[in-house]
Amino acid sequence: MTTTALRGGLVITAAEETYADVLVEDGTIAALAAPDSACARGWSCDRTIDATGKYVIPGGVDAHTHLDFPFGGTASSDTFETGTRAAAWGGTTTIVDFAVQPRGGALRAGLDAWHAKAEGVCAVDYAFHMILSDVNDSSLKELDLLVAEGVTSFKLFMAYPGVFYSDDGQILRAMQRAAGNGGLVMMHAENGIAIDVLVQQALDAGRTDPRYHGEVRKALLEAEATHRAIQLARVAGSPLYVVHVSAEEAVAELARARDAGLPVFGETCPQYLFLSVDKLAEPGFEGAKYVCSTPLRPREHQAALWRGLRTDDLQVVSTDHCPFCFAGQKELGRGDFSKIPNGLPGVEHRMDLLHQAVVEGRIGRRRWIEIACAAPARMFGLAPRKGTIAPGADADIVVYDPHARQTLSAATHHMNVDHSVYEGKEITGRVETVLSRGEVVIDGREFTGRAGHGRYVPRSTCQYLT
Amino acid sequence: MTTTALRGGLVITAAEETYADVLVEDGTIAALAAPDSACARGWSCDRTIDATGKYVIPGGVDAHTHLDFPFGGTASSDTFETGTRAAAWGGTTTIVDFAVQPRGGALRAGLDAWHAKAEGVCAVDYAFHMILSDVNDSSLKELDLLVAEGVTSFKLFMAYPGVFYSDDGQILRAMQRAAGNGGLVMMHAENGIAIDVLVQQALDAGRTDPRYHGEVRKALLEAEATHRAIQLARVAGSPLYVVHVSAEEAVAELARARDAGLPVFGETCPQYLFLSVDKLAEPGFEGAKYVCSTPLRPREHQAALWRGLRTDDLQVVSTDHCPFCFAGQKELGRGDFSKIPNGLPGVEHRMDLLHQAVVEGRIGRRRWIEIACAAPARMFGLAPRKGTIAPGADADIVVYDPHARQTLSAATHHMNVDHSVYEGKEITGRVETVLSRGEVVIDGREFTGRAGHGRYVPRSTCQYLT
Amino acid sequence: MTTTALRGGLVITAAEETYADVLVEDGTIAALAAPDSACARGWSCDRTIDATGKYVIPGGVDAHTHLDFPFGGTASSDTFETGTRAAAWGGTTTIVDFAVQPRGGALRAGLDAWHAKAEGVCAVDYAFHMILSDVNDSSLKELDLLVAEGVTSFKLFMAYPGVFYSDDGQILRAMQRAAGNGGLVMMHAENGIAIDVLVQQALDAGRTDPRYHGEVRKALLEAEATHRAIQLARVAGSPLYVVHVSAEEAVAELARARDAGLPVFGETCPQYLFLSVDKLAEPGFEGAKYVCSTPLRPREHQAALWRGLRTDDLQVVSTDHCPFCFAGQKELGRGDFSKIPNGLPGVEHRMDLLHQAVVEGRIGRRRWIEIACAAPARMFGLAPRKGTIAPGADADIVVYDPHARQTLSAATHHMNVDHSVYEGKEITGRVETVLSRGEVVIDGREFTGRAGHGRYVPRSTCQYLT
Amino acid sequence: MTTTALRGGLVITAAEETYADVLVEDGTIAALAAPDSACARGWSCDRTIDATGKYVIPGGVDAHTHLDFPFGGTASSDTFETGTRAAAWGGTTTIVDFAVQPRGGALRAGLDAWHAKAEGVCAVDYAFHMILSDVNDSSLKELDLLVAEGVTSFKLFMAYPGVFYSDDGQILRAMQRAAGNGGLVMMHAENGIAIDVLVQQALDAGRTDPRYHGEVRKALLEAEATHRAIQLARVAGSPLYVVHVSAEEAVAELARARDAGLPVFGETCPQYLFLSVDKLAEPGFEGAKYVCSTPLRPREHQAALWRGLRTDDLQVVSTDHCPFCFAGQKELGRGDFSKIPNGLPGVEHRMDLLHQAVVEGRIGRRRWIEIACAAPARMFGLAPRKGTIAPGADADIVVYDPHARQTLSAATHHMNVDHSVYEGKEITGRVETVLSRGEVVIDGREFTGRAGHGRYVPRSTCQYLT
Repeated sequence: MTTTALRGGLVITAAEETYADVLVEDGTIAALAAPDSACARGWSCDRTIDATGKYVIPGGVDAHTHLDFPFGGTASSDTFETGTRAAAWGGTTTIVDFAVQPRGGALRAGLDAWHAKAEGVCAVDYAFHMILSDVNDSSLKELDLLVAEGVTSFKLFMAYPGVFYSDDGQILRAMQRAAGNGGLVMMHAENGIAIDVLVQQALDAGRTDPRYHGEVRKALLEAEATHRAIQLARVAGSPLYVVHVSAEEAVAELARARDAGLPVFGETCPQYLFLSVDKLAEPGFEGAKYVCSTPLRPREHQAALWRGLRTDDLQVVSTDHCPFCFAGQKELGRGDFSKIPNGLPGVEHRMDLLHQAVVEGRIGRRRWIEIACAAPARMFGLAPRKGTIAPGADADIVVYDPHARQTLSAATHHMNVDHSVYEGKEITGRVETVLSRGEVVIDGREFTGRAGHGRYVPRSTCQYLT
Repeated sequence: MTTTALRGGLVITAAEETYADVLVEDGTIAALAAPDSACARGWSCDRTIDATGKYVIPGGVDAHTHLDFPFGGTASSDTFETGTRAAAWGGTTTIVDFAVQPRGGALRAGLDAWHAKAEGVCAVDYAFHMILSDVNDSSLKELDLLVAEGVTSFKLFMAYPGVFYSDDGQILRAMQRAAGNGGLVMMHAENGIAIDVLVQQALDAGRTDPRYHGEVRKALLEAEATHRAIQLARVAGSPLYVVHVSAEEAVAELARARDAGLPVFGETCPQYLFLSVDKLAEPGFEGAKYVCSTPLRPREHQAALWRGLRTDDLQVVSTDHCPFCFAGQKELGRGDFSKIPNGLPGVEHRMDLLHQAVVEGRIGRRRWIEIACAAPARMFGLAPRKGTIAPGADADIVVYDPHARQTLSAATHHMNVDHSVYEGKEITGRVETVLSRGEVVIDGREFTGRAGHGRYVPRSTCQYLT
Repeated sequence: MTTTALRGGLVITAAEETYADVLVEDGTIAALAAPDSACARGWSCDRTIDATGKYVIPGGVDAHTHLDFPFGGTASSDTFETGTRAAAWGGTTTIVDFAVQPRGGALRAGLDAWHAKAEGVCAVDYAFHMILSDVNDSSLKELDLLVAEGVTSFKLFMAYPGVFYSDDGQILRAMQRAAGNGGLVMMHAENGIAIDVLVQQALDAGRTDPRYHGEVRKALLEAEATHRAIQLARVAGSPLYVVHVSAEEAVAELARARDAGLPVFGETCPQYLFLSVDKLAEPGFEGAKYVCSTPLRPREHQAALWRGLRTDDLQVVSTDHCPFCFAGQKELGRGDFSKIPNGLPGVEHRMDLLHQAVVEGRIGRRRWIEIACAAPARMFGLAPRKGTIAPGADADIVVYDPHARQTLSAATHHMNVDHSVYEGKEITGRVETVLSRGEVVIDGREFTGRAGHGRYVPRSTCQYLT
Repeated sequence: MTTTALRGGLVITAAEETYADVLVEDGTIAALAAPDSACARGWSCDRTIDATGKYVIPGGVDAHTHLDFPFGGTASSDTFETGTRAAAWGGTTTIVDFAVQPRGGALRAGLDAWHAKAEGVCAVDYAFHMILSDVNDSSLKELDLLVAEGVTSFKLFMAYPGVFYSDDGQILRAMQRAAGNGGLVMMHAENGIAIDVLVQQALDAGRTDPRYHGEVRKALLEAEATHRAIQLARVAGSPLYVVHVSAEEAVAELARARDAGLPVFGETCPQYLFLSVDKLAEPGFEGAKYVCSTPLRPREHQAALWRGLRTDDLQVVSTDHCPFCFAGQKELGRGDFSKIPNGLPGVEHRMDLLHQAVVEGRIGRRRWIEIACAAPARMFGLAPRKGTIAPGADADIVVYDPHARQTLSAATHHMNVDHSVYEGKEITGRVETVLSRGEVVIDGREFTGRAGHGRYVPRSTCQYLT
């Protein structure tokens, strides 16, 4: 047995801020003890990490990544190897990625394919959601099997007709199935049918620049789809998790639902909290870097998102990490914004950006950990192993220096993408040490982990429903 | 140093449910450790409590009691000695009682008087809020001093004209002061001026029975006052805590405020969750036992209160424990319901009744601990010492048997009052062992504590505002 | 020139209740005068109708009828001849019927077909809306032509996939076109895609009885579609008129939109105000008589509809008259409720049923005339010729006896259908005399009009938008 | 009998826009006839007014004036003679002024005093509301008598403690009485108790300039009082009319109430629609001219008021005409804004300013007449004699030139006040001819009426409640 003690830090979880020493036995958290207790003083460990003046926090849980993800004739530029390594650098020790059902094919085939991509190359632990591209009798039956083996959440799209789109009948059927088997439906809520009309009209009128991506994907059409998904879930008697909420009007729909006591949840992403639609109008096709869906919104929507995070109308901040290089990938959409691959890099910066929000007074420290670690873990059935620091939990631990300063840049980040959407942004706070199941994978400014350390984690069902 | 280990239980806090062993060193929690860890196995303690099959939970924090409280020409029937002992029996290890400013007098005088009542007789720890009976230049200045010494919350009344009532100008001034000094204004939100008109009209019409207490104190007049208090707090820039919310319409006002991100909080009480207005119509003046303000409401309001507890539009469940014996006290109002002393006994049953709600599926286990222990502690500046089980916290710990069955009754309760408002109610779950700062004060069916063990706890300011 | 005077009645319009004599010169209202004025006393007319003790009201405008309407392999049982005659019997002097674009065909073809059905056979005046079955570049262009010639409103269906259904993109495009040409989009707001899933599930489970029609077409799915239509109209910048609103939740969506100042309008029908879903469960397949879409709702929805009519969140009451005989038509759905032709008879009873609501105190007399005459006329560009009694208006006038009593029955009604959905219902109030453009078409209990008297009325655009 | 014909104009009422000739017999409207009808062509009249190219509209009804009104140690500068003459100049032919109950005295005494002020000097017709300064058993009993004799509305103040203020109990009792006798409670809805605290704090801090009037009378405190009044009215079962609504948040409270179907009404005034709070900061104490309560609000509130007028959440536009000369009157508050007499001149400009809103597209023509003539008449029991052009109504008629241009100025207005709050404002539209009960009182740019022509008009109860 290898033992590690982290001493002197302020342990922050979603619920507590306590000066405590943490004892790790092999890959598991064995104990938390008051620093001045006889108990803590009595520990003699193989390794002691001095966390004095630092935060000791759970490793981040990023519940929304797309590694090696095929989209628009190309694939996202981070593999499971590069992406999970970048995650580790940023203090994220668990990701939940999306396996994709091939159209006309079985869920199993998609899941197997994604297992093959991830197996043996990940730096940190990983799990899978399933994207349903084709809801039919057969795929609905498969859902039960997947829930039973630990893939307990399914993503559906109200956007992207002809690609991932499901119609309201397919959505309703999937929700009914989820209501029966405990699965959680995740929804990309945009009215893609209406948006595609606006896209075509824009292109027909010669409005081909990236900025029009932000204009045609209207906030009202996100809010509409959000409302519709909620009503369908009510009819089905199922819970609902809305991904990448970006519009104030969509937050309002979630708030209405939650006031009524419905099991409806919402996620937003750092890009919606820190970036705004004007980025899409940057000259020289640079706006293409900021093309993602839902799109960036006018700045005033950010206040609504922060408020939603404070009022718990939004519960989770994930990254929707889906990077495409500017050169050769984003450029596919020159002359036609609809051909720009949708997605941004971000898995490395989530913990830091949200800490910056703590520094700026937008959220408190416990809420930081809740939205970035505990809530995603609980939402997707990873608690109590992930998302907290408690006896028995996996020893996924970050020592975080709240006073260090850093500047985000493509020159220094570890994601496999040729630009940063936060280029030059200054942040207070930085990851210092990262343990993944007791192993130090980041040690100061060095990656000490390895491809293949990360393990697949089957998940239980959503833990907010009991 | 005395050490105690609680082994084998399921430790439940607001945030986690973990099988963990808990180590107490003297009066403080020293460590939590995984039961199968080398760390836990290595403990050798003076005393070991076997919690196998039981819950290990934080001692309850009852943020609203009135012991030895003068009202309507009499005083509540529990002293600090009997009331805190009953609290201990029920698994509550901290109470926050209300000192009263004498009308025309100083806050200090009231606070001193209440210290004198409590000093040396309490079975568990206690703290004080202050009731402002007379808001004026002098008492406003005193507020700053009280906050500095640990009395960080002030109760104002929109009801009871001529007794505790403050007008909207006084309320505004007190809120402005609280905005400056970090105090938290607690509000009894009923439009007492309008209610007194209805009371007089009822009495003039010969409607003197207790049932009319429930009719004249209308839900709309609670909702109105709740809304008014929220708007005054917005003008003052202060937070607000609304006590004993009982009406669905009042919950709706709180939800509206919270959706807007305002620092507005709400408390309800077991009597509003489990009893309804028809009790007031019980024959033979028995209805008088159920006279409290805000009054019991029609049964359909209960669903809104439970929903508010689930959606976090209500954060705290306190008892508003204020018992009056039927004989000689409640009877003062025979022939005139307005002369019935307002108040119910309840300090002993809060933890059990809320566990019953867990059993019935209304709330989850963590939420039980949150609304009964963690949230009141955090709301009133008692965290991290109270309300949780964490290294460094006071060893206020309850071993709770979730399977035991009991029947509530005046014949068996420990409160000093001649009746029970829950007479005959069957409950699943019972307190087995209670530690107060490491000392066992309840051991099975025996009180092993002592008057005077309980200490006064000065409080920091509300911990939900940072 | 022929002159007619109506003397001694209480003239009721949407705005006024005045004792006034009305002078008709040929087919037009020439003057209103105070009965005791020298002016009125000076009239000498070819014919004088004594309206003493009676109401003198505008002829009704029924903005939603389906005469000779093909549906489900059959056609509604009233022709333009029988249907308009029944309308006259009931005090309705203008109907707006729905011409249908053939799928794959031109609007013009549909409109020509409907003109052919109506030409020369109508007892009262008529106009047309257009049903868009196939929104495409060609049909969108035709819309402009239709608006220019007096067909200024277009109905789209979110229900009936494969028949009348338009997807959200088609709806958006039609709304955009309407925003440009002044047309008004009328929406059947039910999520037909989701409903069809529930229909199939019901049938698969052997739930084939008419009662399941009411269960699968859920109120939430009406509300959802209503919300969606409103949002699409906001995106398009167009007004919206929602037909046959039946669910409380849908009214709430309309109210929200109108509070925001959006040009959104709503219609309900007498069947939703007076009948409820339990009718669908009548034994012996009798429930089939009550099959219409949106479906009848539980009784408690009626209060919301009446409130909506009082608060002007609903502006129009039409009949959606679409009768099918029980024998041979409704019976097509024996063993499969989804094959029952959707629709009820009603054109004859609207004025009487709404007067009954006046008698029962649900609405006032002016509001009766507003929702039944003035508002539909103004909504669909028929004012000032139709819907009011004012100098220059068409002399479509009803003398209404507010004290007469009648019993509704298939035995006495004049619609060409073998049953009445109001069989046995007692009503206070009855049409006594009806003038259509100055000609007496109903005289006491006699039809004195003729097929072919009724003329086609081209319409201007919606008059609520200026 | 004298007969007058108004020929060729567009007759606009709340409900219709019709080209019609209007026949007046003595003081009453005898007939409306189509201009090309034999009927109209047959009239031979003593006087014919050519209204070709003009509007023929009902005389305005200003339901809120304060003539010769004692306030703050002075009295409003218009007498009933000068004020009603100015009203006539502006096309207003009926005013409803406020008689004041003397504190400690009887309603009767106040009413008699106001009759004495008005008798024999008015240029146009007038009626009275009653201000309740002292709600007690005796004054409550008097209410029934006043309703019976035609004073059917009572104003209460939640502002002005020590002057007109009633507490919530007095308000409730007055509302209960009104619920019984059909009276309508009019409310000045501002939380005066809280405002007075803020006033004193401002003065204590040396903030004595008029601009602080706008800061201390906060929008939230208007909204709060509006909500409170609505709830008290619900408890009492009475209708409610809120005067001079100026804050967006107050409009929202009214909208909420009306969505729920409550009999709640709201009035705003031209100053809130056209002026904003920055006027109060004009240099040289000029801001004092704009001191009124509720105060002018930031410009963005205007949009909410216009929307409220369009959605019918506000029903009436009155002037709250209460002029004080700058010299000697407004100047009383130099050095202490709280001593500036509250009130603005406006009775002369209401019809023109609202027509300007028609020109600017904010409201339609019929809505102009509704909010300025028909709704106030109906609200206060003056219909059908006032507020419309219909047979039998009083011949209070304005010929309005919609194309004339004028510039508002103290140099040209007819109100007895030394300044104009609209100085220099350009308006399209002007009153050309005014008839009061058939007599021409304004003829082009000449006053042809006389003091004493105006008669007292007893009123029936509110006509929106039946």
